[in-house]
Amino acid sequence: MAVKTISKSVKLQNFKVNDPFWKNEMELVRKEVIPYQWEILNDRVKEAAPSFCMRNFKIAGKLMKEKKELGAAFEEPKYTFRGFEALPEDMNNLEDKFYGFVFQDSDFSKWIEAVAYSLANNPDAELEKIADEAIDIVCAAQQENGYLDTYYIINGMDKIFTNLRDHHELYCFGHLAEGAVAYYEATGKDKLLKAVMRFADFIDNYFGADEEKCKGYPGHEIAEMALVRLYEVTNDEKYLNLSKFFLDERGKKPYYFSEIEKHDNWTNHHYHQSHEPVREQKEAVGHAVRAVYLYSGMTDMARITGDEKMWEACKNLWKSATRDKMYVTGGIGGTHMGEAFSYPFDLPNDTAYAETCASIGLMFWAKRMLEVEAKGEYADVMEQALYNTVLAGMALDGKSFFYVNPLEVLPEACHRDERKFHVKPVRQKWFGCACCPPNLARLISSLPAYAYTENEDTLFAHLYVGGNIVKDVNGKKAEFEITSEYPWNGNVSFKYVGEDNVNMKLAVRIPGWADEWYLTSSRDDANEKTHSDEIDGYVYVEGVWSKGDVVELTTPLKTRILSADSRVRENVGKVAIMRGPVVYCMEENDNSKDLHLYKLCTEEEIKNCNVMIEGKQFPALLAKGKKERNVEGDLLYNNYQKAEYDDVDITLIPYYAWANRGENEMSVWIRV
Amino acid sequence: MAVKTISKSVKLQNFKVNDPFWKNEMELVRKEVIPYQWEILNDRVKEAAPSFCMRNFKIAGKLMKEKKELGAAFEEPKYTFRGFEALPEDMNNLEDKFYGFVFQDSDFSKWIEAVAYSLANNPDAELEKIADEAIDIVCAAQQENGYLDTYYIINGMDKIFTNLRDHHELYCFGHLAEGAVAYYEATGKDKLLKAVMRFADFIDNYFGADEEKCKGYPGHEIAEMALVRLYEVTNDEKYLNLSKFFLDERGKKPYYFSEIEKHDNWTNHHYHQSHEPVREQKEAVGHAVRAVYLYSGMTDMARITGDEKMWEACKNLWKSATRDKMYVTGGIGGTHMGEAFSYPFDLPNDTAYAETCASIGLMFWAKRMLEVEAKGEYADVMEQALYNTVLAGMALDGKSFFYVNPLEVLPEACHRDERKFHVKPVRQKWFGCACCPPNLARLISSLPAYAYTENEDTLFAHLYVGGNIVKDVNGKKAEFEITSEYPWNGNVSFKYVGEDNVNMKLAVRIPGWADEWYLTSSRDDANEKTHSDEIDGYVYVEGVWSKGDVVELTTPLKTRILSADSRVRENVGKVAIMRGPVVYCMEENDNSKDLHLYKLCTEEEIKNCNVMIEGKQFPALLAKGKKERNVEGDLLYNNYQKAEYDDVDITLIPYYAWANRGENEMSVWIRV
Repeated sequence: MAVKTISKSVKLQNFKVNDPFWKNEMELVRKEVIPYQWEILNDRVKEAAPSFCMRNFKIAGKLMKEKKELGAAFEEPKYTFRGFEALPEDMNNLEDKFYGFVFQDSDFSKWIEAVAYSLANNPDAELEKIADEAIDIVCAAQQENGYLDTYYIINGMDKIFTNLRDHHELYCFGHLAEGAVAYYEATGKDKLLKAVMRFADFIDNYFGADEEKCKGYPGHEIAEMALVRLYEVTNDEKYLNLSKFFLDERGKKPYYFSEIEKHDNWTNHHYHQSHEPVREQKEAVGHAVRAVYLYSGMTDMARITGDEKMWEACKNLWKSATRDKMYVTGGIGGTHMGEAFSYPFDLPNDTAYAETCASIGLMFWAKRMLEVEAKGEYADVMEQALYNTVLAGMALDGKSFFYVNPLEVLPEACHRDERKFHVKPVRQKWFGCACCPPNLARLISSLPAYAYTENEDTLFAHLYVGGNIVKDVNGKKAEFEITSEYPWNGNVSFKYVGEDNVNMKLAVRIPGWADEWYLTSSRDDANEKTHSDEIDGYVYVEGVWSKGDVVELTTPLKTRILSADSRVRENVGKVAIMRGPVVYCMEENDNSKDLHLYKLCTEEEIKNCNVMIEGKQFPALLAKGKKERNVEGDLLYNNYQKAEYDDVDITLIPYYAWANRGENEMSVWIRV
Repeated sequence: MAVKTISKSVKLQNFKVNDPFWKNEMELVRKEVIPYQWEILNDRVKEAAPSFCMRNFKIAGKLMKEKKELGAAFEEPKYTFRGFEALPEDMNNLEDKFYGFVFQDSDFSKWIEAVAYSLANNPDAELEKIADEAIDIVCAAQQENGYLDTYYIINGMDKIFTNLRDHHELYCFGHLAEGAVAYYEATGKDKLLKAVMRFADFIDNYFGADEEKCKGYPGHEIAEMALVRLYEVTNDEKYLNLSKFFLDERGKKPYYFSEIEKHDNWTNHHYHQSHEPVREQKEAVGHAVRAVYLYSGMTDMARITGDEKMWEACKNLWKSATRDKMYVTGGIGGTHMGEAFSYPFDLPNDTAYAETCASIGLMFWAKRMLEVEAKGEYADVMEQALYNTVLAGMALDGKSFFYVNPLEVLPEACHRDERKFHVKPVRQKWFGCACCPPNLARLISSLPAYAYTENEDTLFAHLYVGGNIVKDVNGKKAEFEITSEYPWNGNVSFKYVGEDNVNMKLAVRIPGWADEWYLTSSRDDANEKTHSDEIDGYVYVEGVWSKGDVVELTTPLKTRILSADSRVRENVGKVAIMRGPVVYCMEENDNSKDLHLYKLCTEEEIKNCNVMIEGKQFPALLAKGKKERNVEGDLLYNNYQKAEYDDVDITLIPYYAWANRGENEMSVWIRV
């Protein structure tokens, strides 16, 4: 098979969301998250750690009334990972210097990207005005030479690109490019895009294969895929080549981070995926977000350049990440040490990292894999990540967030066991390091781009997001009205409402988890359409379409009891419950404490029921089980006696809805 | 019950070990560990991290040919915990300064203490000569004013006692005092004892309740019990009062470490057990070694001063440590974060810390509890720690050591999972921070002091160590010949071989784990001896003793299957196997990989067998079990199917003998 683009995301403007499930989530992002985030960016939220993001841009752009000479002292930040906040001692007496993490600029970039998607879905003049003004502030900070990173503009331009490993300049650039392209595509306004192109030109002058140029590459990947996106909107091959340069340099010897930058502290090349050339990488390793951002960029590059070795590496890494190292919730990153992939099958439930951003990145990657190869397994993983870990990242009211998504929680452990301090039993307001909430905002508001991709004559439906989609087919306007009650109901209908007599294909994904499915299309004969068999997880409905044609997919949503590969030690003797794409979990609230003493009766029917959460009826499940009686004798260890059990009902709620009713125990895996 | 001394350890000189099991271990210490350690102390072992210990004493005592002015620069050590070695860059070009950990002096002190016990058991003129010369070197470093800690002597005396939290001066003093008292008791030589008394006097002048004195206390406890020991050998109440002062200050507000020393980094008062006054402490918390050293000192103080509140605290802490926070192997310290106690019932098997030194400290404490109250549970715990975690600390050849004693090991996890980097799948040669090996040496060579305690007319047998013991009873020489094949055989005989017609009591411990036991004494009637019932785990045989009297205790060593309190989440649905005091484990060597797939058939008989380890037949167990068939399908998660099993034999070896045949999986807990 030749490696090439087989489809690309549909444009957001061509999709009008009308989905009972997702409309709500997208409205939460539009009405709660985006406005709140803007307040955060401007340090106007009292209970949250200040961002300093817009303040840094203003200082860099000399828009603040100066109190002190700028950049008086170059202060090396006390750089640590999540949780560190470089807070000034006295918030009422700030100096005109850079505050916050070195990557604070990216807060703006993620926000503007989410704003762009939101505007594409929901034009909003007021929001657009705020965004334009924000862009003015950001652009004011840009230097004559095109450079645009406030940390170094404020602290001293002589130090730029001297710590690629830790200082995130190329990461900030990548996010800025993503945001600029999105804003341009949504609004047609190119001020930020042009600024980013100038910054990219500056970077291209600095880095490259020519002898005199720097041979570095990003310490935190994202620029790779952002440059491809910049290339695809500008058609300027310079950007594609720069991305390829960054990919090709990675893992070359001498190692850039340890041997060229010569950090005096330890460099873990696996952490940065710089341990070997990317085409030779087979195992997903290191910081999980970095990893999937890199793999996304690699997949883009393989698709555009037809690089078969690169594609082979992408497939190997996909297998490693999703076949050996993924939680049933679509979470990745088994260890909080480095927020990283652990060794194969090491998927602890209670100390999991499974960062929200990592699952978002996994969706980025899955979509890119689908753009090269329409294979259901990529969409299955994308769906699994979306409906579980990604959704769990945000509270039902859109006001608090999980960075870490454990599969088992005992609140006491989170409070008292340092090994689990990264695991929070309830969602947090907003961290100083704001990666997950804005990432969630940009993902959810651009969801149609993940659900649907297209080429000249084919529309691919990967996820069943309801709404109206229009598509140009040889100058004719095709249109489908898609109706879905996913994930609670397995019926999806695609009603053709476009111009008559359009010759095209509709590729409908059949979920990998569906052991039973039915696809029907009315008026087939009249319109000479054919159904393919299931090919790699897709059924292709092909022919001439006219108004009123309906394709219906039915996947009965049966409750499934799953067990893990026996090499996953944590889950031996345990099962997890799914219904459709949704993973369920036990919460103490609906059951009782000591969830580890519950056993599921696998032979009894699991019934549907409802549970009230946040004033809303939630589709839940009711299973029959047994609870082991507590043995709490005089001694810690006693002569073994066969356990005694009480019959119990086990209530299971969707995993993504957990922790919306205060602190309590939770467990996805249940003993059998 | 009045709190007072009810018995004290027998003198090592009064016990001649003749025990098939322990003789071997003690000989390993005498012939392997002590000589090797002396080479280590003198930096003559190429493959081990240099100690610099004797070198520091020589520099402090100006016994080294000077190359540079001493103490030219006061260098704050880059202080971290275990694993950090303050190695010079060029070992062939050392300067005349302090090298190693701040607590490096204590390497000598632990060595001299082990030497003392060894000499008490086995007079050895050559070893004594080496020891005397070492003492000369150490004493040469002592300052005019009595101060004796090479770190500050070399780096600048103006800084002494300025960082009690981290710099271990009082810890080093405590170890020096323990060593000095032991050496005096073994040899009658008082040079080191007198030096320590001068150092203690210096400390007593510096610290105390008087207004002008410093109100600090040790950051790492041990001085508390060492000062009691110094008091008991000198009868100088000053030392007892200083110990009491240190205990009383602990936990007082303002907090010394955070509020007086004002460290700019975070102080975790629980880590140092300085979070509340000792008499109010109820839960065993913080660094486990520090904790049990403190609790040992508290128990000494309660015993000597009759302080009932202190005794109450000791009993509460004992309950917390052993009822809620102890591994079945007698290990303590559920988390490697701070090498510390975790919250109650948090006893993870694979990430356990369970430091060898902590279990040794638990034995120190248990013996002290027994000196106040003859209660079997203290001896049970002492025995459980000794035969399992403590013994596991040393390889069967005495040449390598475990600091951390996990209950479940997968070698790949130790190599690839940072959360388990503290867990080693095989014993290590010798660390830069040499706490466990020398602690093992001093414990094992003084074992009779733990096995037997006495008062005027009673000999208590807590552990069944074979040998001859003599005891003065009102001027008469009582003597017992004790024969034991513990831990492999449950018969112990106490044959009276002393002067005739001695009126005394023999208190024989009945193990808590023995559900069946028989105690007989021959010629009872003739000698008018009475047997008490079992009182708190002891049977008192009382009366007039004459040559030939024999008391025999038989405790049939049945294999026991144990389960944990159901609040220990890690062990739900699992069992551990013990026989007598010995915990057994599965090793991959005798079984196969994937030990997590094994299940024990609890209804089948568990038979005795033998396994060859290190060229020796080891008593092992053979159980019937089942092994779950591997399910390694195309997907990581598959529809649940009832597991299939193959019948297997499960071989179990004593836990302490694991990891003597290379890297392999190990597990104490087995599913049922």
